[in-house]
This record gives sequence, structure tokens and C-alpha cells, in this order.
Amino acid sequence: MKFVLTIGNTETARIDGISAAGANPDLMLHTPSADAEILSYGRPTQAPVVPVSPTGCPTPAVVSRAARELLEFESVVLNAGTAKPTTAPTVTLPGSTGQEIREARAVPDAAAKFDAARTYGQSLPDDELVVAETIPGGTTTAMGVLTALGEPTAVSSSLPENPLELKRSVVADGLQASGLAEGDADGEPVNALRAVGDPVLAAVSGLTVGALESGTDVTLGGGTQMSAAAALVRHYGVEAPLSQTTTSFIADDTSANVRKLADALDLDLTVTNPEFTRTDHPAMDAYVRGEAKEGVGMGGALALLTGKITDGPAVTMADLHEQIITVYDRLLADAPDDHPAAPPDSNIA
Amino acid sequence: MKFVLTIGNTETARIDGISAAGANPDLMLHTPSADAEILSYGRPTQAPVVPVSPTGCPTPAVVSRAARELLEFESVVLNAGTAKPTTAPTVTLPGSTGQEIREARAVPDAAAKFDAARTYGQSLPDDELVVAETIPGGTTTAMGVLTALGEPTAVSSSLPENPLELKRSVVADGLQASGLAEGDADGEPVNALRAVGDPVLAAVSGLTVGALESGTDVTLGGGTQMSAAAALVRHYGVEAPLSQTTTSFIADDTSANVRKLADALDLDLTVTNPEFTRTDHPAMDAYVRGEAKEGVGMGGALALLTGKITDGPAVTMADLHEQIITVYDRLLADAPDDHPAAPPDSNIA
Repeated sequence: MKFVLTIGNTETARIDGISAAGANPDLMLHTPSADAEILSYGRPTQAPVVPVSPTGCPTPAVVSRAARELLEFESVVLNAGTAKPTTAPTVTLPGSTGQEIREARAVPDAAAKFDAARTYGQSLPDDELVVAETIPGGTTTAMGVLTALGEPTAVSSSLPENPLELKRSVVADGLQASGLAEGDADGEPVNALRAVGDPVLAAVSGLTVGALESGTDVTLGGGTQMSAAAALVRHYGVEAPLSQTTTSFIADDTSANVRKLADALDLDLTVTNPEFTRTDHPAMDAYVRGEAKEGVGMGGALALLTGKITDGPAVTMADLHEQIITVYDRLLADAPDDHPAAPPDSNIA
Repeated sequence: MKFVLTIGNTETARIDGISAAGANPDLMLHTPSADAEILSYGRPTQAPVVPVSPTGCPTPAVVSRAARELLEFESVVLNAGTAKPTTAPTVTLPGSTGQEIREARAVPDAAAKFDAARTYGQSLPDDELVVAETIPGGTTTAMGVLTALGEPTAVSSSLPENPLELKRSVVADGLQASGLAEGDADGEPVNALRAVGDPVLAAVSGLTVGALESGTDVTLGGGTQMSAAAALVRHYGVEAPLSQTTTSFIADDTSANVRKLADALDLDLTVTNPEFTRTDHPAMDAYVRGEAKEGVGMGGALALLTGKITDGPAVTMADLHEQIITVYDRLLADAPDDHPAAPPDSNIA
């Protein structure tokens, strides 16, 4: 099994109110690169910031890294186009970051990214991939893609209050700018990506198609952004079994409907509750309050951990909570004083 | 502990007779990228060839990968400038591949590479790094650097017959083209690199300096190329303890003198014998005949394995031999028919 974190940026995240409030948009650009470094090394190595929301909710990368430290699974970072450099080891796709989805083309190089990710997915010798993502603004582009494909658009948010009306308005403008109506990209996933997608959706869907074509099992580790990636895979014509793992915070989000999307897209959905209500720590409390919810493959990492619990080895949720605190304390100890809590967005936007 | 494989190319490898005989220089360009993929994934993913010498000696990447499959240590690939792309996950330094050392500047961007590698080394949170290399032609540039620094020049070769006279002649021409005499770059490691080095030496020495500066222990996993890297570190003024691990094939090479170099550079040298004489298999026989000897951190991987044997867990040299055959068979099974045995150089050139 290999855990593939796909990272990228879209200008869509700069739209006011789309991502967590109080953001400094410039610092937010570092989130995917910082997440990649936290997953790979346990802390940022080049990124100047630890992604933490204004209210103190740390990036879900903390949870995924904690699980990785307990389970020692292999991870790879797939760079779909980031605004800021990273010294995480990466496999880098062609092209650049994503444009604002209200531009005519949100991902001008969607075909090149999709094709390169597909080839990469075909080339991997693994039996199974767990695919994760980090891209601020990504639930809005997910809604864009689902709308263009004519699928249900019940996307979630990293914000406690999902700004659904704003997202719908932005998506409507994006479709219009691309000359598309709802459902016009049915069966044309690359067109949907180009018009209203983002680089990470292009990478995740291409990677998944390639991996499934070569007989590798794929689990999409994430929330409704991964539902959108799955929709792209299905609209490409791939009917192979496909799994999704997410957190209970996503499944409990009444503004979204990850189960409905999973049913519509024939996904085998696993929901894992990390039992953060059993703890009282700033690394976990914000999730209980409805922030962040998912991202950086948190749900996928939790499912791996739960699998290990089932199989017998002595890894418990209490072990996870303890390891999360270890990672969190390490990040806070390393954070420079002039960047106490930034960037303000979490990873699922 | 993290195993860092540094990859790169130098035009120096194209000089007739410097690297393994019978080479197709174009295919040889793929060796570092292929080695990175074998270490990372267990087989080439994008590189079109499995690096095998004309006589059937497979790349030492097979041994390092086999050890990694047994010990499950983390690895990172540091790309110092390759001629061919790779889909191994990489941390990529600025600049390009190395020029021929008979040009005025062998590594025009030596300072940028060294500095970026140093910063990266400082940023890593690991307690210990094992640093490995793969660059065809690398023992010639190692001799160049040692000569420029005024250190002993007793370098080894991947060839059974070390072409020392040719190397000395090439190095002399290289120094002359750079306006340097023997020892002229004493205390000026970046000047030595720029004049007669290669990208991998710039990366390994910069990484090592940065890691040692931040309190990380470093073990240079390799033969006399790593002696040259250590010389660069010492001439930078770093006196911290520094270890080197290599194979018995290097230590037994009477055309070279890795022990003398280790003494001169105050290195704690560990030599490991992989006991290939106990087997009879094409994946290992060529080493016994004096080919390849080292590369892709083979000596470092063997030392890690031996450490594990000492510590108790049930990993034996027989386990290693079996795993080498598993990796070798996988590579042969995957090799396309039109590339049965290429490129012809091994990784230590």
C-alpha cells in the first residue's frame, strides 16, 4: 500500500469567503507545500508556516502524519501545481497552478496533467493506493466539476458554516465563463476539469484511472472533493470497484451528502470516527466543533489505523490521540514567533 | 534514520573508456533515474531500462532496494541534475547536469547546488542520514576534486580494470582547462566542484555540511566518491564526526585506497562483506568477479542490515541474498525485450 498525497493550488481559493474567514491569502498559498512537508518529514522544512486556522484548528496533516508515524506506511507526494515551492520529495506533473474557476479555463493544462497522472498511475507496482489531497478552495472546484458532469453537488466545507450559496454563485459564473450549462460535460471529464476544475482533481482522477487500469486497487481518502474525483473517473468510463474513506465529521456534515455521492458513483464508502470527543486538546477540539473535517487523507489514514486495530496489532485510538499531540507539539515548538497561526485555511477548503 | 539517494549526470561519463566498456552512452544517461525508481518503487516506472552491465552485473540499486524491502527504512531521492526525467519522488536542486570536466567549468552552478543542498540538510529533522549516490563517471570527477583539494587520489572503479591512467590524464586536462594546479583549491570546496566536480558531489557535500551543522549524524554510504564528498566537507571547515560505510569490494580494490582516504579525512569507516561468495546467482556473481563494487548506497544499506543482525531481529545475509534474487527477478520480468541489458555502466562508474 502506498499513500499518495496530491498537492496543488487554485486561484479560486482567493475568492472572499470561499475558504476560512480571516485568511491572509498570501500565507494560505503555502498550505499544500507545508502539508506535504509535514506528511513527509513530520514538520515544515521549507514552507514558512504551519497551516493552522485562525481559531487554532491545525491542518489535518497532523492527523495523517501521526497515523503514518504509528503505522509506518510509505507516502509519496504528487505535485499537481503549487504556488509555493516545497522540499518534500515530489513527483511533479506538467503545467502550473489552477486559475480562478470564473476564468474561461480553470485548468488550461488539464489534459496534460490528467494524462501524466494516468501514466504514473499505470506505472506504479503497488497492489493498493490510498489517494489524498490538499488544495485550498477545493470544495468549490469539486462543486464545479460535479455540476458540469451533471452529478449531485452536495459538497462539504472546512468552515463550520458551509458557504453554499457563494459556491453555487461562483460555480454558475464559472460554467458561464466556460460556455457550459449544468451537465454539459457529461462523459467528458477532461472538459469539466479544464472549465471548472482544479489541478488536484485532474491529478487524482488521472492517477486513479491509470492505477485501476493496471489492476491496482484505489481508495480515495477524503471527503466530497474525492467524490468529485470519483465522478471524473466514472465519467471517463471506468467501472472498476473504487473505495472512499472519510471522517465522521464529513459524514455528519448536514450541508453536504458524501453518502449520496458515494451511492450515485458506486463507491464503497468507509467512515471512521477518530473519537476526538474522548480528548480535550487544541489539536483535536476544533474538529469536534465542526472545523476542517477532513483533508490530507485524514479519513484514509484513520481507516488504515482502524484496519490495524481490527487485524490485531496494538494500535488504539488512544495511541493516535497521543501521537497527534506529539506531532502538534513538535510543530508548535518549531513555529517561528512571527507566524504563530497561519495560514488560516485548512486543507479541504 | 533516512536514506538519501543523490542522483545526477555528468558529461564526463561520455569519455571513451571512463565507464564500463561496451556502453551505449545514450542508454547510460538513464542510469541515475532508473536507480532512483528501483530504490523508490522496486522497479523502473518511467526509465526505459534496468541498469545492467554488458556482462550481466545488475545495478547495486538491486542490493539497496532488497535491503530496504527487508528493513523498511525511509528513502528520499535528491536530484542534483539528471539528463533524463524520473517519476521517483525527488527533492530537486537548482541547475542542470554536469559538464565534461575538461571544460573550464564542470559544474557551473556548483555554488547554487551546494547552498540549496546545505539548506535542505539543515532543515531535515532526522537524527541520522545515510547518504548514497548514483552518477556514471563519478569516480573520475571524484579524482578531480581530490586532486584540486590536494588530497590523496586513490579512487576506485566500477570496471574490473581501473582505468587510472586515463582518469589521471582527463583530470590533468580538466584542471588545466580550469586554470588550476594540484592543491590549488585547498580550502575552497565550491571552487573544486565548479572546476572539476560533478552535481552529485556538490549535492552530497552541501547536504552533509548542512546536516552536520544542525546536529544530524551523517553516514556517507559509498566508496571513493564518498571519500571525495567527505574531503569537500572537511575543506569547508567542518570537523564534526563523519562516518562512511562501504562494501568489502571497495576495500579490497588494490587500485584504490578507501582506508587511506578515510584516515586522511578523519572518517569512521565501516566495511561490510555481503558474503556473495556463498551464493551462485547472476545478481551477485559479477561483484565477486570485481565488477560494480558499490553504488546507490549499497555499502550503507549493508551496514544497516548488519546493524540489524547485531541488534537481534531475524534478518540474515541469507535473507538478503534471497531478497536480492526477488528484486532481480522482478526487474528481469518487467524488462522490455528490446532493452535486455542496458545501460551498460554501473552506478559508481
